[in-house]
Amino acid sequence: MTTTDKASPRDRLLDAAAQLFYRDGVSIGVEALCKSAGVSKRSMYQLFDSKDEMLAASLERRRPWYEAQLTAPDAEGATPRERILFVFERLEQASVTPEYHGCPYLAVLVELKDVEHPASVVAHQVKDRLEGFFRAWAEEGGAADPAVLARQLMLIFDGASARAGARIEHLDDGLVTGTAGALMDAAGMR
Amino acid sequence: MTTTDKASPRDRLLDAAAQLFYRDGVSIGVEALCKSAGVSKRSMYQLFDSKDEMLAASLERRRPWYEAQLTAPDAEGATPRERILFVFERLEQASVTPEYHGCPYLAVLVELKDVEHPASVVAHQVKDRLEGFFRAWAEEGGAADPAVLARQLMLIFDGASARAGARIEHLDDGLVTGTAGALMDAAGMR
Repeated sequence: MTTTDKASPRDRLLDAAAQLFYRDGVSIGVEALCKSAGVSKRSMYQLFDSKDEMLAASLERRRPWYEAQLTAPDAEGATPRERILFVFERLEQASVTPEYHGCPYLAVLVELKDVEHPASVVAHQVKDRLEGFFRAWAEEGGAADPAVLARQLMLIFDGASARAGARIEHLDDGLVTGTAGALMDAAGMR
Repeated sequence: MTTTDKASPRDRLLDAAAQLFYRDGVSIGVEALCKSAGVSKRSMYQLFDSKDEMLAASLERRRPWYEAQLTAPDAEGATPRERILFVFERLEQASVTPEYHGCPYLAVLVELKDVEHPASVVAHQVKDRLEGFFRAWAEEGGAADPAVLARQLMLIFDGASARAGARIEHLDDGLVTGTAGALMDAAGMR
């Protein structure tokens, strides 16, 4: 997610957008974004139809990095339970950094309050993909109802990220891995 | 939360603020709030030092109503488990209404991203009070670790309200009551 001066204006804008929307919220102005990216407003509007489109594109651009963060390095060799626990271990690790404000995709959904906004559509897709991974792993691990377990794990993931991002919860004592483990046990998962 | 024309300008402003901040987010402008309340900006600034103070006061004013919604009508006669499940049943019921956008206190925390904002302080208090109720009931019900179970229930509560508010989850099939029940069972609660 680092940007050099040699990056294209488009990439500079998208990286600035990802950073500032995450830190300050979706109401941040176009002027602040352009200033941070070192790109004129005129250039911005040549690249994107609107601020909304730019926000959506910045979330899309961040997706591969985000998903890689949640994927166990030895995913092939890991058991389904280990792959699920890795997601929550990563959440616990990320949540204690000073710059953590919760899951960027959930935050955008909460802030926009508009399911048809292009950025909400991207965020919804990213959330669905994570739920899909959970469901596949739950099935592979023999959970009684993989779809329900996946939805339960998403409740934990989003509740924990929102609460830790808002600094009303600390995840550094294994709260979420323990909760995920209890739900996997309750679902009869290996 | 209904307001008549006979309500004081202060109450009209606080009710309009609670409604509009919830529906549109904390970035809504002072002009829109004053217009909705039928109060001049000059009057508003005589009543409140700032928009931030007004937001905090509107959350504080809403608190008794919010907590009453989550309290079982026969709380004295109900078991601790029933009192906890009632909270999640109410969440399931509220989440299917068209005007639902998730827990108003969590939304403010996610949107403001500022733990020292006066509205964040109020929201944090409301969240801590609910967690305190969960902890007391968990203890009364014989949970192995009431503090941990209360934190787990808050993860579920906030995850479910955020996801249902963003319309990426539906709670009308008993997802959260079932999850809360599984966690109470895992904690050995009666």
